[in-house]
Amino acid sequence: MLSRLVYSLEGFMTDEPRSHWGWGHASGFGTPDTRKALGTMVGTMLGLQTTEPREPTPPNEIDLDQGGVALPSELTELLSDDRELRLRRTFGRSFPDLYRGFHGHFPHPPDLVARPTEPAHLEELYRWAASERLALIPFGGGTSVVQGVTPGDLPDYQGLVTVDLQGLSYVEDLDEVDRVARIGAGTTGPDLEAALSPRGLTLRHYPQSFQFSTLGGWLATRAGGHFATNYTRIDDLTTTVTMVTPAGTLSTPQLPSTGAGIDPRSLILGSEGALGCITEAVMRLRPRHTFRSSVTVHFPDLPTATEACRHIAQAHLFPSNCRLLDAREALFNGVVSSPAHVLLLGFEGTTPVTEPLLEAALKIAIDAGGTPASDPAHRHRDAQGDSDRPEEAGRWRQAFFEAPYLQGRLLSVGILADTFETALPWSRFPRFHKDLKGRLLALMKARCGGGHLTLRFTHVYPDGPAPYYTFICAPPPEQTLEVWRAIKEESMATIADHGATVTHHHAVGRRHRPGLARERSSTFFSALKALKAELDPHHILNPGVLLP
Amino acid sequence: MLSRLVYSLEGFMTDEPRSHWGWGHASGFGTPDTRKALGTMVGTMLGLQTTEPREPTPPNEIDLDQGGVALPSELTELLSDDRELRLRRTFGRSFPDLYRGFHGHFPHPPDLVARPTEPAHLEELYRWAASERLALIPFGGGTSVVQGVTPGDLPDYQGLVTVDLQGLSYVEDLDEVDRVARIGAGTTGPDLEAALSPRGLTLRHYPQSFQFSTLGGWLATRAGGHFATNYTRIDDLTTTVTMVTPAGTLSTPQLPSTGAGIDPRSLILGSEGALGCITEAVMRLRPRHTFRSSVTVHFPDLPTATEACRHIAQAHLFPSNCRLLDAREALFNGVVSSPAHVLLLGFEGTTPVTEPLLEAALKIAIDAGGTPASDPAHRHRDAQGDSDRPEEAGRWRQAFFEAPYLQGRLLSVGILADTFETALPWSRFPRFHKDLKGRLLALMKARCGGGHLTLRFTHVYPDGPAPYYTFICAPPPEQTLEVWRAIKEESMATIADHGATVTHHHAVGRRHRPGLARERSSTFFSALKALKAELDPHHILNPGVLLP
Repeated sequence: MLSRLVYSLEGFMTDEPRSHWGWGHASGFGTPDTRKALGTMVGTMLGLQTTEPREPTPPNEIDLDQGGVALPSELTELLSDDRELRLRRTFGRSFPDLYRGFHGHFPHPPDLVARPTEPAHLEELYRWAASERLALIPFGGGTSVVQGVTPGDLPDYQGLVTVDLQGLSYVEDLDEVDRVARIGAGTTGPDLEAALSPRGLTLRHYPQSFQFSTLGGWLATRAGGHFATNYTRIDDLTTTVTMVTPAGTLSTPQLPSTGAGIDPRSLILGSEGALGCITEAVMRLRPRHTFRSSVTVHFPDLPTATEACRHIAQAHLFPSNCRLLDAREALFNGVVSSPAHVLLLGFEGTTPVTEPLLEAALKIAIDAGGTPASDPAHRHRDAQGDSDRPEEAGRWRQAFFEAPYLQGRLLSVGILADTFETALPWSRFPRFHKDLKGRLLALMKARCGGGHLTLRFTHVYPDGPAPYYTFICAPPPEQTLEVWRAIKEESMATIADHGATVTHHHAVGRRHRPGLARERSSTFFSALKALKAELDPHHILNPGVLLP
Repeated sequence: MLSRLVYSLEGFMTDEPRSHWGWGHASGFGTPDTRKALGTMVGTMLGLQTTEPREPTPPNEIDLDQGGVALPSELTELLSDDRELRLRRTFGRSFPDLYRGFHGHFPHPPDLVARPTEPAHLEELYRWAASERLALIPFGGGTSVVQGVTPGDLPDYQGLVTVDLQGLSYVEDLDEVDRVARIGAGTTGPDLEAALSPRGLTLRHYPQSFQFSTLGGWLATRAGGHFATNYTRIDDLTTTVTMVTPAGTLSTPQLPSTGAGIDPRSLILGSEGALGCITEAVMRLRPRHTFRSSVTVHFPDLPTATEACRHIAQAHLFPSNCRLLDAREALFNGVVSSPAHVLLLGFEGTTPVTEPLLEAALKIAIDAGGTPASDPAHRHRDAQGDSDRPEEAGRWRQAFFEAPYLQGRLLSVGILADTFETALPWSRFPRFHKDLKGRLLALMKARCGGGHLTLRFTHVYPDGPAPYYTFICAPPPEQTLEVWRAIKEESMATIADHGATVTHHHAVGRRHRPGLARERSSTFFSALKALKAELDPHHILNPGVLLP
């Protein structure tokens, strides 16, 4: 088993105190002074009305329900009714979670928290939960932004138990020939990379939640990956995955590929805790890259930039980075100082072929109307890993991992900022984007006097992009959640109107369930219900996720 | 709808008469003289005892059961009891099918053949079959080598109806922006490519059965693809797929990717006709490549060649071709004239970056101990598509599409030749290969006095290869099927012993079901049964495939 270490990896530390309501480490919230300055800057730059910085309700002032489930004597080592444990597993990190957490409203905390350290513990828990009619919520890093770990009121159940899976944290059987390792589902991103790093290998999967989320969470939600193209979704990196269900253990053999019927991994990946708890997986690793070639390209308008991305994606060159930031996204994140749509284009690898690959992709971008950022130092060959990047790409990376902290800081000065994402065919994107922008800006104008919508492409496929949107506005304070809900509904409705998907990689959870219902056939839900009835016959697992 | 044309594409013609028992066109069987010469050559080269060429039983001399299901008056347009139609849908193309067909033994023909031309016909068929307690066998090109379309005796059913889906043949809604098209499941490989070709696009999916098999068959069996690495399995080329089940239609939205829960395509792909009939799919296309760079590399021994393949696969260069032929495979197929393990290495694309990519891959091959074939003309840049290849690669391609014909010709001179395939991690391959070779050569020695086993890698993944084996021997004529069965059992047992998969891309059908049972957990089968019960509640579809 991997022993827990204090380490520094990619600048991430795990020994700092965590926020009880907001993203990540408590220190990431900043001081009132820095938040006041942030408010002033945002107010000036975006023309939004900010407030004086406010402070969250301290944990000890939060009125937390006692919990109505008695600790069963035979499971005392597995279960806890500790107030702090329960408080810190009441919410995920969706905007309503943050908002309520900030204001000290913690309704529907779990009655108990289970902390299994081996698969057999799950079997015990399932038996007990079925007999007591309790709901079990699998919980990894608790970073869900779609209310995947917050069931709310559950009138049909006698209580709620959160199953914290971080006890299943290990990296074992690392095989340098096959380049795979067996990894416990509760292993966080930094723990996992810390264990692989001494062997020169990496999973290289960096969702924005990387620092706190777990492999099990990534698998359960089919997380989107680091690479903008080609094998990048966590599915692609998974050779074997094991899920303990109330009806038994679903496991798959370790194979590079198989054509033997329905892919058994597909019944596990994306099951979002509704069919079982994922306990471990054998993951595909790669050596840390020794070559990187990258460049930033500017575009005068979004249609031109979009076409460039399409042509690059369709050339099957498979850049590791092909992220388009629209002018506002680039400006707001401090990537550029004067308006331009910015494409971050890069190739990583273990051979110098990254150079001609970049040349080929850059030629396509230029032919499509792009202008490479002028400094030739923007293209690097780097044997040291991640230290050296084009300046604009480095600024973007910084902003990327800071964004979730920024959301909490902005909340404290009266600003609502949140994101949503989708994927759709290239041919439908221009009309979708125009419609979405029109509808959301009008809505924010009507409800908040104004607001902003920014766009990036997180991933590009030969048949379409995955657009990712950020909206920012300053609602009347007492209407914050109402405005958030209205924007969320409008975005989901627009997504459905254009035949896009309700989520490319944020998962469904409870928040996106209406959107899922719109994009799947009723026969699909009948099949899913049949699977649920078979694997979780007492319906104890994560009620309300995926299925009503 | 695509009108049926006589055309010539990649050298394939579809207007020739088809064999009633063997592979493809009747003419592919050759004359007695050519088969006599083949027997002499094979006898000399492989040291096997061949017989005088024999002829198959002509169709009109075959004793075909009358069929016990009356044509229902309301479905006369959809159903036929025509003898020829029934005869030609009695078998797939597994070795026992060929052997029985050759000898005129056609047990268990379908009672009737249904030829739906629209999805609504399937609904009618399902209702009728459920009420009459009939089994329905979805049938595309009928090229299954795993008895996927031959249920044999069905004592629990009142009769058997083959559902020939070739009426669902069309290419529609070709979108040149998204590079996708909606394609009917009954469309054969040549029909599909003929419709795409005038628009400069291609699916570029070439299973060995390409000329006769259908898109629906490829999807139902998760066919392996043209490319040796990266997106190649038919799954990867599928954006949307529709399956009509007795419980309703499962369809998925057209999206480049989605993270919304369990991937709905995964309930359809690999279902092998046991859950419904696939009716159409929206497939990802690509332009025909304008650049190809390829080379053949020789290796002195198999371990060296294997390591070279592993290093190339793990460098994430994604060659389109990385097919290793062991010395016997290369020799028997006429690829080389003196013994060497041969790696066919190539890159295709729409930019000249194929050249540096090949350089990078070739460097890895040479570093691992390979010697590039000396003629520098072995590396090509080709703006005309497929015409120009390294000589050895061209000879391989020729042999690849001829192999199924060769099997029938060899059968007529007393030679049993068949193939099986698997996939497993690199680390397990050397021991597996040694064990398999030992066991099968010993078995062939004991039963036939000798025999040969040849190997190729059809696909290579970062974590393992997909080895593909051919065995050749001359069993005592009356023991041919028995020997075939013994070899098949021994290969499946060896595969299971080493934790390999029972099939990388030949599918499960009925032949591989025992192997599937060994490599999946019982919980998986419970889940699959639940799906089957939900989608095909009367168990009318393809009984005996995937599930007992």
